[in-house]
Amino acid sequence: VSEAFSLPVRVYWEDTDGGGVVYYANYLKYMERARTELLRSRGWEQSHLQANDGLVFAVVSATVDYRAPARLDDLLAVTAELVARRRVSLDFDQTVSRKAAGGEVLCAGRFRVACLDAQSFRPRPIPAVILEEFR
Amino acid sequence: VSEAFSLPVRVYWEDTDGGGVVYYANYLKYMERARTELLRSRGWEQSHLQANDGLVFAVVSATVDYRAPARLDDLLAVTAELVARRRVSLDFDQTVSRKAAGGEVLCAGRFRVACLDAQSFRPRPIPAVILEEFR
Amino acid sequence: VSEAFSLPVRVYWEDTDGGGVVYYANYLKYMERARTELLRSRGWEQSHLQANDGLVFAVVSATVDYRAPARLDDLLAVTAELVARRRVSLDFDQTVSRKAAGGEVLCAGRFRVACLDAQSFRPRPIPAVILEEFR
Amino acid sequence: VSEAFSLPVRVYWEDTDGGGVVYYANYLKYMERARTELLRSRGWEQSHLQANDGLVFAVVSATVDYRAPARLDDLLAVTAELVARRRVSLDFDQTVSRKAAGGEVLCAGRFRVACLDAQSFRPRPIPAVILEEFR
Repeated sequence: VSEAFSLPVRVYWEDTDGGGVVYYANYLKYMERARTELLRSRGWEQSHLQANDGLVFAVVSATVDYRAPARLDDLLAVTAELVARRRVSLDFDQTVSRKAAGGEVLCAGRFRVACLDAQSFRPRPIPAVILEEFR
Repeated sequence: VSEAFSLPVRVYWEDTDGGGVVYYANYLKYMERARTELLRSRGWEQSHLQANDGLVFAVVSATVDYRAPARLDDLLAVTAELVARRRVSLDFDQTVSRKAAGGEVLCAGRFRVACLDAQSFRPRPIPAVILEEFR
Repeated sequence: VSEAFSLPVRVYWEDTDGGGVVYYANYLKYMERARTELLRSRGWEQSHLQANDGLVFAVVSATVDYRAPARLDDLLAVTAELVARRRVSLDFDQTVSRKAAGGEVLCAGRFRVACLDAQSFRPRPIPAVILEEFR
Repeated sequence: VSEAFSLPVRVYWEDTDGGGVVYYANYLKYMERARTELLRSRGWEQSHLQANDGLVFAVVSATVDYRAPARLDDLLAVTAELVARRRVSLDFDQTVSRKAAGGEVLCAGRFRVACLDAQSFRPRPIPAVILEEFR
């Protein structure tokens, strides 16, 4: 439904664990940064959506494959591609690769993100202006 | 293949995000703590496995469903149940619930954990003594 | 002003970094857990203070000495001792040690924690019932 | 001893807590990123120092003042200025501000970073080529 968006991400000490590689939960942080920047690139800031529209986007399901480890000082490319949109949720395919040309995919994931009421965390229709933006 | 192990986990400020709920990647931290404590309860400490046997256990795939949010000060129960074992990997089904009796499942996941060489991150057979423990 | 409170904390993979030790910012997480549990032991839950009283406690200054590293699987004791109380702030002395008898202090810190309005983050008087509790 | 280096940092959900602001320990992550990028800008990558020279830089003391909160989506400027250098340690003054012109200082810190043996974590002389770089 849309071309892949890519965000450069540097690996810092905070991201690594005692195995000498990026801790497995931290790839989900990288992927959220890329989804957030994809939204921002289309003009949507989640802090405004929360404060002004009373809604948040929250992950309701995640599937992640870990293929090879990223390490300290690696420069990564984190993609986010919208692959499905529904009334209350969006699906994203995402990858984390080394940024160098031909960098192998280290980690790949699919995420379903739902639009929720910021107070009740009940599903809410995604605002039409956002759905239109991602048509 | 084994009964569910359960670890109590308290939600602290560090775990929450600006949405007022536990940040989605942090459930993976909770679930790793439970897998680690399940191993420890059987007599295996991963720091020893890394230092003495030159091996680490690493997640190679994760599937997570987020059903309802946990919040600051919640006392959670995080389960880990071994549901499959192979030569180089173990599968765990895990849940995060409120610890109160009848607490609903907030988050459920399945994780494949592979035994890897601590240096090369290439697959290695799980030590027989560990596989036996989980028979 | 009060005796030291102590919280046991286990070191997990999430806490370590690629240096093989606990990442320096994570000791501040441990110390906050101990302050939170000290408050809870006196009957105060910060989620309630935020929701019902519209106030949060926030660190306004921190001084931390790092003396020796904690490592994966270490069982730590994290203390919190109230050493001063003022109208809008509390001072805590805290240490992180190995829990084994005679465990050396790995990390020591002093923290000033202010009572703030949960919306404006402006200072607010600490509720009298809390100050009384810590007399 | 050197002019201030500045790194832009965006605030993501992972950085915030349930108070709606950046969690206090996470400013230490931002400041470490800036120290790391300052080193990198002079040609030193810590992964190489660890692998090739068997040394790591570790914070041995930190003093941090928290003046005003950063929030989701804020674009920050994180500075790092070398203010003292010794045989085995370097002192850095650092600030976190909003990146907009005239952005107030939200958080300021001083950090002593020691050169340590990567295995024993005992102090080691900083390599002369690095000290020269920071003359």
